[in-house]
This record gives sequence, structure tokens and C-alpha cells, in this order.
Amino acid sequence: MRIGVLGTGAVGRAIATRLVQLGHEVTMGSRSADGEALKEWIAEAGEGAKGADFATAAADSELLFNCTAGIASLAALDSAGAENLAGKTLVDVAVPLDFSAGFPPSLAVCNDDSLGEQIQAAFPQVKVVKTLNTLTAALMVRPTALANGDHTVFVSGNDAGAKETVIGILESFGHTDVIDLGDISTARGAEMVLPLWLRLMGAVNTPMFNLKVVR
Amino acid sequence: MRIGVLGTGAVGRAIATRLVQLGHEVTMGSRSADGEALKEWIAEAGEGAKGADFATAAADSELLFNCTAGIASLAALDSAGAENLAGKTLVDVAVPLDFSAGFPPSLAVCNDDSLGEQIQAAFPQVKVVKTLNTLTAALMVRPTALANGDHTVFVSGNDAGAKETVIGILESFGHTDVIDLGDISTARGAEMVLPLWLRLMGAVNTPMFNLKVVR
Repeated sequence: MRIGVLGTGAVGRAIATRLVQLGHEVTMGSRSADGEALKEWIAEAGEGAKGADFATAAADSELLFNCTAGIASLAALDSAGAENLAGKTLVDVAVPLDFSAGFPPSLAVCNDDSLGEQIQAAFPQVKVVKTLNTLTAALMVRPTALANGDHTVFVSGNDAGAKETVIGILESFGHTDVIDLGDISTARGAEMVLPLWLRLMGAVNTPMFNLKVVR
Repeated sequence: MRIGVLGTGAVGRAIATRLVQLGHEVTMGSRSADGEALKEWIAEAGEGAKGADFATAAADSELLFNCTAGIASLAALDSAGAENLAGKTLVDVAVPLDFSAGFPPSLAVCNDDSLGEQIQAAFPQVKVVKTLNTLTAALMVRPTALANGDHTVFVSGNDAGAKETVIGILESFGHTDVIDLGDISTARGAEMVLPLWLRLMGAVNTPMFNLKVVR
């Protein structure tokens, strides 16, 4: 599949690299097409790896991952252009962390709204699927690195077909326990895991952990 | 131990009954000492079970559980009286759910504050320990009813000795994986699990589930 990954941070790079390894044609999107992070990633990822500005990455792809910083996501998607995103599935991995008051960060939106919902509202022709925001990048793309993958990820979104496509990608990463929480408003719950996640990282002293829904 | 359980709802009753079974002298506290729910519980729980108003329950106990509705907890603790609570450990199980706009409820406080912190701030001489608010009442007190107890609970609080005492009680309930998240500000993360928990209950179609921190 032709997949665009918006954002050149640790999450974007991990996801884009894994998608290349799985045989997808991946374009990483960045603010500028000749940024350093983009060049580094292309050199590292090898064949199947391209870089472009947000708009080109969106236009050239059938499906997109939003891996930009949560508080900058709406602006990045505006740069990508509603016309380049329309009709496509957007996998939203971002978390709206606000570090302006230091650690621990708060959430810039939560409780009666979520970043996933804000993106869906701003881009009604996009099929937004929130997922993967509850675990560290290394485990997002290679869950079997922990407990043989015996832990859980969540999906939220309004479009059943888009969620099915995304669950297929998650399974190709190695996820075996994907729980469909419901429509995009359920992204609130998934995004609100972050305050617990950050403190757990301190308590267990590693980011290599994940939640399992035991039932 | 002489333990007071404030609140006569499903959580208060489950905890109070379990404590009686474990041999503690339990006083369930309610707004009024002759409420119906209180009488029912005393008849049901048998020897070791007493009922009283909030103030008497607090005064007569060495340790207390706050099992009142989260949005009413501060008022209930005011009724209990700061002088009757001072110096004691208060196990705060409440969640500040706001159902005023229907389902799903939002949280009346979250993100940059929590009910646990509000109680600690209002009653500085109380040792508040937040715990057990992330799972259903039946599993709070009998975790082995699910997957042999192979799942996680969290504690948050400023006083190490109080947390140790509470962890002892949790272990007597059957909990084997108790993670100390840190000071009472970490209650934010634990309380913010609720929006996910409520949607998970819908997705897995039972309240008999819990999170396990796989690491």
C-alpha cells in the first residue's frame, strides 16, 4: 500500500521503518521536503522510503499516519491539505501533551473532547482511526518484543471499514489483541491513558511496558 | 483493625463485607445512622458489622475507606469531621464522575488536579491513599475471581507508611501486583482511567475485567 507517515519524530520513524520492512511504499511527510530528519530516515530505511512535504506525502498516499506532536497536529494536517486527505483513512497516533508547565505534562484537550475528535471534526471527509497512542514506539510496531505480544491495543473510529484496514496493519505489526472501543469519541479514554502511562514509566522504570485488558 | 467505610453503595458494601470476613471490626458510615442501606448491610454482613453516621464512623475507626460518590466526597468528609479524620489513613476509592450530561459521564476534576489531591488539600492531616478505583467492586475485594488475580492495581499517596498499610490490606484481598505510582498527584492518572474503563466495559461486555501492566 502507498502509505504516508506525517511526522519525523521517534514514533513516525518507527512506524515508517516498520511499514517499509513490511513491503509498503512509504512517504514520510515533514514541514519541509529537505529537512535533516527526513534525509536521515530515508538513508536509514532504504528502498521504498521517500520523503516529501506534508501536502505531497498526503496526495501521494492511500492511507496516512498522523505521528506529529499532538498540539501541532491540526496545523500539520492543514498543511497537508483537506483536498489531499479527503476520503482517506488517517491513523491518528498523536497525543495532545502540553509540556508548557513542565513535567508531568497535562493534556491540551481531554475529558469532554479529544484530539481524535478534533481532527475528525476539522476534516469530516477523512476516516480518522485513533490507535497505538497508549504504548511506546518500539512496542507499537513490534509488540512481540514484550511478553510475546500478550498485551492490548485499542482502536476508535466512526468508519467500520477504515477500522478493519487499520486492524489489518496492526496485526501485520504483530498485535493479537486489538479492542474496538467504538466511535471516535472513545478516543477520549485512550488519550487519557497518558497521565497514567507517564507515571507508570517512572514506577516500572522502563517505557517497555503495555496494558493488557485481562477478561 | 477498626475500619470505617464511608458510603453505602455497591463499592462500600463490597469492601465493608470483605473486611468483616477478614476479621476486621467494620463500621459503615452513612449520612444518617438509621438509613435503610445501612441496616440492610448490617443484617447481611453479620458479626463485626456496625453502622453509624459519617462522624461516628470516622471517630471510631483507625483507618477509613472513602467509598462515597466522587462528586459528593468532600461534603461527606466534611460531615465526618476533620477532627475525627486527623492523623488517620484514608483509602480513597472514589471517582469524580459527572453524569449531569448523561452517558458517558465526564470527570468533574481531572488532568491538572484529581479528587485524591483535592481531599488531601482539604484535609492536610489525613494520609490519603488513592487506590482500587480502576476496577469493578467485585474484583477490588476478590481479584482472584479473574485470571487467578493476574492483573494490576495502583496506589498513590504522600505517606510511605500509609501506603504500606494499604498495600497490606490489598494483599489480604488477594492482590499480588500493586504498583506504587508515587505521591498523591499520581492519582490523576489512575482517576483518568475511568473514561477508558467505561468504554471497555461496553466493548468486552462485562465489568469483570481489569488492566494488567505487562512489563
